[in-house]
Amino acid sequence: MAKNIQDYATQTQPSPRQSLIDCYTRVRHFTEQLCVPLETEDYVIQSMPDVSPTRWHLAHTAWFFETFLLSPNVADYASPHPQYAYLFNSYYNSVGERHNRSQRGLISRPTVSETYTYRHYVDQCVTDFLASCDEQLLEKITPVLTLGIHHEQQHQELMVTDIKHVLSCNPLYPAYHEQIPQKTAQVPPLEWISYPEQLAWIGYQGQDFSYDNEGPVHRQFVDAYQLASRLITNREYLDFMQDGGYQNPLLWLSSGWNTVQAEHWQAPLYWIKQDHDWYVMTLSGLRLVDPDEPVCHVSYYEADAYARWAKARLATEAEWEIAASHLPITGNFAEQRTFHPEPLSTLLTSDQPAQMFGDVWEWTQSAYLPYHGYQPAPGALGEYNGKFMCNQFVLRGGSCATSITHIRPTYRNFFPPDARWQFMGIRLAREV
Amino acid sequence: MAKNIQDYATQTQPSPRQSLIDCYTRVRHFTEQLCVPLETEDYVIQSMPDVSPTRWHLAHTAWFFETFLLSPNVADYASPHPQYAYLFNSYYNSVGERHNRSQRGLISRPTVSETYTYRHYVDQCVTDFLASCDEQLLEKITPVLTLGIHHEQQHQELMVTDIKHVLSCNPLYPAYHEQIPQKTAQVPPLEWISYPEQLAWIGYQGQDFSYDNEGPVHRQFVDAYQLASRLITNREYLDFMQDGGYQNPLLWLSSGWNTVQAEHWQAPLYWIKQDHDWYVMTLSGLRLVDPDEPVCHVSYYEADAYARWAKARLATEAEWEIAASHLPITGNFAEQRTFHPEPLSTLLTSDQPAQMFGDVWEWTQSAYLPYHGYQPAPGALGEYNGKFMCNQFVLRGGSCATSITHIRPTYRNFFPPDARWQFMGIRLAREV
Amino acid sequence: MAKNIQDYATQTQPSPRQSLIDCYTRVRHFTEQLCVPLETEDYVIQSMPDVSPTRWHLAHTAWFFETFLLSPNVADYASPHPQYAYLFNSYYNSVGERHNRSQRGLISRPTVSETYTYRHYVDQCVTDFLASCDEQLLEKITPVLTLGIHHEQQHQELMVTDIKHVLSCNPLYPAYHEQIPQKTAQVPPLEWISYPEQLAWIGYQGQDFSYDNEGPVHRQFVDAYQLASRLITNREYLDFMQDGGYQNPLLWLSSGWNTVQAEHWQAPLYWIKQDHDWYVMTLSGLRLVDPDEPVCHVSYYEADAYARWAKARLATEAEWEIAASHLPITGNFAEQRTFHPEPLSTLLTSDQPAQMFGDVWEWTQSAYLPYHGYQPAPGALGEYNGKFMCNQFVLRGGSCATSITHIRPTYRNFFPPDARWQFMGIRLAREV
Amino acid sequence: MAKNIQDYATQTQPSPRQSLIDCYTRVRHFTEQLCVPLETEDYVIQSMPDVSPTRWHLAHTAWFFETFLLSPNVADYASPHPQYAYLFNSYYNSVGERHNRSQRGLISRPTVSETYTYRHYVDQCVTDFLASCDEQLLEKITPVLTLGIHHEQQHQELMVTDIKHVLSCNPLYPAYHEQIPQKTAQVPPLEWISYPEQLAWIGYQGQDFSYDNEGPVHRQFVDAYQLASRLITNREYLDFMQDGGYQNPLLWLSSGWNTVQAEHWQAPLYWIKQDHDWYVMTLSGLRLVDPDEPVCHVSYYEADAYARWAKARLATEAEWEIAASHLPITGNFAEQRTFHPEPLSTLLTSDQPAQMFGDVWEWTQSAYLPYHGYQPAPGALGEYNGKFMCNQFVLRGGSCATSITHIRPTYRNFFPPDARWQFMGIRLAREV
Repeated sequence: MAKNIQDYATQTQPSPRQSLIDCYTRVRHFTEQLCVPLETEDYVIQSMPDVSPTRWHLAHTAWFFETFLLSPNVADYASPHPQYAYLFNSYYNSVGERHNRSQRGLISRPTVSETYTYRHYVDQCVTDFLASCDEQLLEKITPVLTLGIHHEQQHQELMVTDIKHVLSCNPLYPAYHEQIPQKTAQVPPLEWISYPEQLAWIGYQGQDFSYDNEGPVHRQFVDAYQLASRLITNREYLDFMQDGGYQNPLLWLSSGWNTVQAEHWQAPLYWIKQDHDWYVMTLSGLRLVDPDEPVCHVSYYEADAYARWAKARLATEAEWEIAASHLPITGNFAEQRTFHPEPLSTLLTSDQPAQMFGDVWEWTQSAYLPYHGYQPAPGALGEYNGKFMCNQFVLRGGSCATSITHIRPTYRNFFPPDARWQFMGIRLAREV
Repeated sequence: MAKNIQDYATQTQPSPRQSLIDCYTRVRHFTEQLCVPLETEDYVIQSMPDVSPTRWHLAHTAWFFETFLLSPNVADYASPHPQYAYLFNSYYNSVGERHNRSQRGLISRPTVSETYTYRHYVDQCVTDFLASCDEQLLEKITPVLTLGIHHEQQHQELMVTDIKHVLSCNPLYPAYHEQIPQKTAQVPPLEWISYPEQLAWIGYQGQDFSYDNEGPVHRQFVDAYQLASRLITNREYLDFMQDGGYQNPLLWLSSGWNTVQAEHWQAPLYWIKQDHDWYVMTLSGLRLVDPDEPVCHVSYYEADAYARWAKARLATEAEWEIAASHLPITGNFAEQRTFHPEPLSTLLTSDQPAQMFGDVWEWTQSAYLPYHGYQPAPGALGEYNGKFMCNQFVLRGGSCATSITHIRPTYRNFFPPDARWQFMGIRLAREV
Repeated sequence: MAKNIQDYATQTQPSPRQSLIDCYTRVRHFTEQLCVPLETEDYVIQSMPDVSPTRWHLAHTAWFFETFLLSPNVADYASPHPQYAYLFNSYYNSVGERHNRSQRGLISRPTVSETYTYRHYVDQCVTDFLASCDEQLLEKITPVLTLGIHHEQQHQELMVTDIKHVLSCNPLYPAYHEQIPQKTAQVPPLEWISYPEQLAWIGYQGQDFSYDNEGPVHRQFVDAYQLASRLITNREYLDFMQDGGYQNPLLWLSSGWNTVQAEHWQAPLYWIKQDHDWYVMTLSGLRLVDPDEPVCHVSYYEADAYARWAKARLATEAEWEIAASHLPITGNFAEQRTFHPEPLSTLLTSDQPAQMFGDVWEWTQSAYLPYHGYQPAPGALGEYNGKFMCNQFVLRGGSCATSITHIRPTYRNFFPPDARWQFMGIRLAREV
Repeated sequence: MAKNIQDYATQTQPSPRQSLIDCYTRVRHFTEQLCVPLETEDYVIQSMPDVSPTRWHLAHTAWFFETFLLSPNVADYASPHPQYAYLFNSYYNSVGERHNRSQRGLISRPTVSETYTYRHYVDQCVTDFLASCDEQLLEKITPVLTLGIHHEQQHQELMVTDIKHVLSCNPLYPAYHEQIPQKTAQVPPLEWISYPEQLAWIGYQGQDFSYDNEGPVHRQFVDAYQLASRLITNREYLDFMQDGGYQNPLLWLSSGWNTVQAEHWQAPLYWIKQDHDWYVMTLSGLRLVDPDEPVCHVSYYEADAYARWAKARLATEAEWEIAASHLPITGNFAEQRTFHPEPLSTLLTSDQPAQMFGDVWEWTQSAYLPYHGYQPAPGALGEYNGKFMCNQFVLRGGSCATSITHIRPTYRNFFPPDARWQFMGIRLAREV
């Protein structure tokens, strides 16, 4: 089980330096593989402010290595396009002015081809640098290189979810890739797995890479609780819908109900009713909703309302982490290239929850806040996580668009409660 | 020390029934006393969506008793104005349609005089009912009556803060009441009070009234921490401003920085720069900022940015509650009728924080979320607290507009992070 | 037939000086008479940006005389409230900064009572000045005094229409005054009156008061045309509605159709469907739509769409003026205090259109633009008319809220094409 | 001098049928020639709601011929992509539902290549049809074919102005084409040319193509007036700017001044101040403002304010048409491929205005309204012009992005008063 990039890299037993180069190359290459099905036109569009054009992702991830690795460490490095620093800075206030996020879709140049040229130039410089720098420098830059690789993987996931949103805006419902054969499965009934009260250590305590927001490791007292043995399915969510879930304000948080009304939500994002059937836009185009698949593209508001309707609640992130910490990291991840959640087909053991990793990110009821003793990294990279600790909820476990080498039990993803365009789903919890 | 309404009521030793009537009468009367300085015109205005016209508060609090006490329990009760139920329902979806919140300022009728007539009619019915109902019914309705009284007190505080906002929109800077003589004080230096790590019981565990969101009482593990001995003063906050606090994005949460820029924030709400001096709009009109007063009318964003600049942080609500739980509830409350925070004039003991109650609500870094095992009250009253548990932060301790009989160490107030029109201030905390 | 204030004043044959004083006093008094039915609360509300609070109208019209008559001409005149100049300037950029129009409803002070005191102070100063100034000065200031009187009358009409809008926002449908007994009438069939082609002199050419936008008198060539003998009735407009008028985009101007959809227009402003009947909010409260009354509170978009549906068009302002120029100015005006259009009850002569004056302003198809040779008045009063000559359409003839002494055949009222809260109706025209 | 497409076509003396085919082919080909400098990415972007992606223009103009020519007339014509009808209908409500205009930039498919395939398919069908249909049918469809060709030319101009706007949003200031060598010229002083009062025939009265809004020909009385001998230059406009033109509300229409403040206008669109110099974004990238060029990309508001500052006014469209009706149609048009206005280099005759055609559209003070007797064309094509006759002003004369074969003295272009992204400039008029 390879849960860390560097572990993964070292399976092939090359030198640590070569491992880093291989890992960098492999991850950067995967980004471009994700783009193979795209037309040039698909790269350009920003279909809502949260979405970035694919081309922007390609350039921004190159800019990251240029800004944080090459510029500070390669003596005479000069960007071939100094003005890209303005265009492709995402939100690092400390490294200068940046282009308005909501206007990324107004920019047609650099072209896709020029963007790839820029990426390849950066790749050449990075690999040259990694191959030639002395050991001391290599050790010093390994953390930022590793961060850059994980940063690239985050953007890989965003590229998949963003391109899905872009294509979904098109009434022609174009497909990103061919229809993946749908799995059929007899989804086992939902059971409840019990955990005793405990003073638990929460947060990352290993030696490998983790984000600053996963630490420091610290104690939290957790009362006894139960966790659902699997994700909520479309069939179960349809029961909620048919029971008037979207029409009953008493099931919703107040701001959630306002959103339901303002946005006219009647179903998860990408669901479309035609005649009497629910269809769903997928990366393989429009198809009938499969009742056995985990429900996906629901907001925190919907996950919370569903849980209230089901006389349960969402888990806290500590509850989720306790349950996940000893499980193997397996599941439906980006490497499988399905990019769609799958019905549960593995047998459940009697005492461990299934589908904890992959398929869909699981909303927790925990607001995204700093752990006790949290300190952001110094310098510009300190703007990575901490400044978003407001009005967001934590999601855990990764999705079908996450790389398996990117995820950990302590990994904290976060989005505002109305976000739906990520692969987000529901796992229930309850008091004993 | 009288920290609970019923305690307070029983100090005069009448019968429990009479105590309830007295308490109801006293609190209802205080609402109207708050309006004595107002002109009729002042009652009508809604100066922003968060603000309600004073007349709306007067009617809504009467509607509450009519809807939840009289209608269900008085056999032949009929509202003299059935259509008021539509106008003066605030957010209880389960008791019917309601007038749009943001349009409360468009309604000139019922007039102020008619509104008082309505209030007095309800008061007569309530006191008649309390005086005549049998003991069994009295016992049954005591919780909802008590809730109504606390609800009235909450609206008293909102009336004060709302009318302050209304008057502040007027370029003539009208005063609500005469200038209160300003206290002068030699504010003692800020010190740090230490608390050891502990598994603490958090939440209300008494027998008197508390809101459902203060329970159930439960355990939280809290690491060792330090709490500031007093509130942050205007002098200290001016240091932050002069050090470029409002110009440096690295000090701010990302959404906070967006707000600073969109709203052109340069200082706390109600501060106005004239020539080279900062003035502040108070309920006694415009006056120079007093550097010794606690800083007030700052948002969570500003409190958080100030703390970061000061190399500290805000407390969690558990940390605050541990420190407050054994302190006497004394301070600058609504009964004092200053309606403005005061410089710290009491001597600090060496080991207890000052100004924990009254003056200003203290922002905590805790998102407003349900405690473990939280269940909202059944029925319409269950819409009171739980449905707001999203995108809000907890404030503790009460303010100069809070009634002393309304506050408790476990009391959880909550507002969105950009709210500033309540009396909100800053107390720092830090790791050991 | 008294169609001009000065004419009207001179009917009583006092001295010209006394006539001016009488006229001033009478018009100023009428403003306050319009307010008699109001509660204090009604004076304060701004129910939409176009609406001003009644109290604002009262103060602004006093400010006008203070600013343009007293300050420049009374040697030691000092405003008792210099800050009112900021609050009650409407749009005269040349006389200084002004309070934001959309925030007039946020201001509770000066109170209504203080506002009346201010008015009466100004009135005293004006009448003292008029009684005592020398003849030369009297002659010099007569134009601005006369303009101020007409300005006051314009605001009288706005007060009526604004207070109607304010009361209409209240779900209780309060009445401004008692129900006026509804006239019943057998409305005669619509006929067409023909006018030959001509080179007509258009614009005001008399010696009495007129606005600058009514001149200079100039020639326009007008082709032969026909004008409808009366206004369109509610019955006829209901035919349009029942024929799907609000659902058929081909009947509408493009921006009109966008407005219909964005605002969900289904009927004229103030119409409310209850069960299966159309009701209308009037200044006497809610009542059934009377099919014989002229349709009212329709926008230019609706008037234009109705005309297209009826295979006709609206008149140009020149066509309207030619038809009106020799008609007596009689009709349902503000002096009648109905403030509601009435069914046509007078017999039609065979060759003159009825209802040309009073009842409702009649939308023309003419954009509000300068006449050939137009020059705005010099100084601040030049901001009165000319700067609004963009994106507005001309209305002619006055309404039930216009003073009979205020209207002329050449009078050009103007509003944007989506405005509906004035008393606005429809008269058709067509080619021969 | 060939001012009409059909005239132009017949210069080569082929048969009328062949002329039509040639004309169709030539105009369609010119559309694609305009795209030669574009990258694929440039075709996709909608930089503001008024702008359409180039690819949309390409598809929409093909859809026009498919919908109005092929479908009704070619027996078994079936669109290869029936769903394009939804995507590429611009505003014809009568031919079915259409994609939201503001969302044209969210659609990445059909690709640019697929769009060209669609165009070429339509072209093949049209030319096959034209070559083979019988004479009677040819005669019947000639008007709609001709309209389609003029429609195509309108979109050619929009393509140029839209792509200019798209490129201007890019901080890299990419160029559409190479820098055209700038002409230098000694611009002659502005003189005034006098026209006597007259009862003029206005509107198109020829036999060739014209839009329905150019008729019917009718009489208008026009007082004596003077027209400026040339366009206003950047030098003159800079005088206005330096005299505080953008800071003085008295120069502006009220809604214009609101726009200046809301949009922070300080100069024409595309002007950028760097250090102390004004630069302008052109289709050849950023370059210094040339003071001798006609000022361009000004709104009606700016043209009107400039005229007021210059103690003149804009012409009415009748005044413009009288002056233009006997002038040769020559100038800087799209065929010249400069796409930028040029300094006046031709000598002025003593009695005729220069630059009346080409370079920039000239704002008139005439609102865009129907001529006396105007009737829109029947059917869907009737939605072409008439429904926009509201809140727009007329512009005359064509621009450097207009085809010479597209323009006429009677041609009425129209835009809202705040529009600036077309090539729009200023010619003054005044009373005698």
